[in-house]
Amino acid sequence: MVINNLILPEPTLRRLPWYLAYVEILKAQDIEYVSSTQISRALNVDASQIAKDLSFLSLKGKTRIGYEVNALVSSLADFLGFRISHKAYIFGAGSLGKALMLDSGLANYGLDIVAGFDIDNKKVGNMVGDVPIYHIDSLATVMESNPATIGILTVPADCAQDTADIAIGEGIRAIWNFTPYRVKVAEGIVMSNTSIYAHLALIYNRLNAEI
Amino acid sequence: MVINNLILPEPTLRRLPWYLAYVEILKAQDIEYVSSTQISRALNVDASQIAKDLSFLSLKGKTRIGYEVNALVSSLADFLGFRISHKAYIFGAGSLGKALMLDSGLANYGLDIVAGFDIDNKKVGNMVGDVPIYHIDSLATVMESNPATIGILTVPADCAQDTADIAIGEGIRAIWNFTPYRVKVAEGIVMSNTSIYAHLALIYNRLNAEI
Repeated sequence: MVINNLILPEPTLRRLPWYLAYVEILKAQDIEYVSSTQISRALNVDASQIAKDLSFLSLKGKTRIGYEVNALVSSLADFLGFRISHKAYIFGAGSLGKALMLDSGLANYGLDIVAGFDIDNKKVGNMVGDVPIYHIDSLATVMESNPATIGILTVPADCAQDTADIAIGEGIRAIWNFTPYRVKVAEGIVMSNTSIYAHLALIYNRLNAEI
Repeated sequence: MVINNLILPEPTLRRLPWYLAYVEILKAQDIEYVSSTQISRALNVDASQIAKDLSFLSLKGKTRIGYEVNALVSSLADFLGFRISHKAYIFGAGSLGKALMLDSGLANYGLDIVAGFDIDNKKVGNMVGDVPIYHIDSLATVMESNPATIGILTVPADCAQDTADIAIGEGIRAIWNFTPYRVKVAEGIVMSNTSIYAHLALIYNRLNAEI
């Protein structure tokens, strides 16, 4: 397995999962080879861009035949880190937090949610699917027995910053922020925002503009 | 209520929900006025950018006092469409689809999920929370009795394109794509991708690069 420790450009990291999803479909159809022209036509991405993105992988395509589908699937999934388990905690066992704990699909992409944290004593001590919910005060203890590197923020917006600070203080190194609050973190901490609300705002705006 | 039918730039639509989340916190703290400088400091966004973004709203700030917090909350929430109900269907009642149906938080942002569709007869006929699951073949009928404009795609990647085509064929006007497949739609159809897998790839890549 190739462990990649290049910092890849964000647009490349956005496109590589598209290629993976597409070649996985070809694999399921027992198709053996795919050219960048074919991927280009299917996904509306410039063929030279695809060749450039795939050049980050050690894999080489063959002239006139293209890439071997099986090898491309493995190589992309490995390269993107989807085949290694990455341990994560969920902060906030409310409706979205619980939903993510129950989404077994994330495990297929290397995300292993091992614990949830909340401050609500009615939630603490319960299980959501197979994820135990602890009080946030137990974070240091859980971090010792079952450490994680990724903290998924699904708390209310008004405790997003405090929760991130606590999590980072106990050793969390990446924050995946699902709250609409813009959390600030120190340099060296990985930050990724999934702005569900911004996507909704975009959809509503574009729909309205059409009327 | 101000219905906005300007096409706003995507970066503005990404930032406006941040401002809303922040001023909602101030409102809960009974703070009456906020300046763009204050918002700027809290969110690490340039103050002139904030003034520019907020200029899309009809609201005006007062010199030296700033914006009235209550009015800014209402104005932003209205402007972003979060206070009008937008009906949506979920296509794919698997793990992520079910999770979204159970996420009551989305309703606070104007998203009303009224039906789910699947092809699995074990799922069809059931309820997830208060959302009924229909067979995809019933789409035209449901569209008549309880129409929706937004289709949320949580099907497996290999049926993403077909499902989007069917949904659009029956009158869905916006696709919110949660699959890793890059779905293509005709001009005039609103398309928004929430690339959970791309965000994971980004987190993994940045974490690895640090080691």
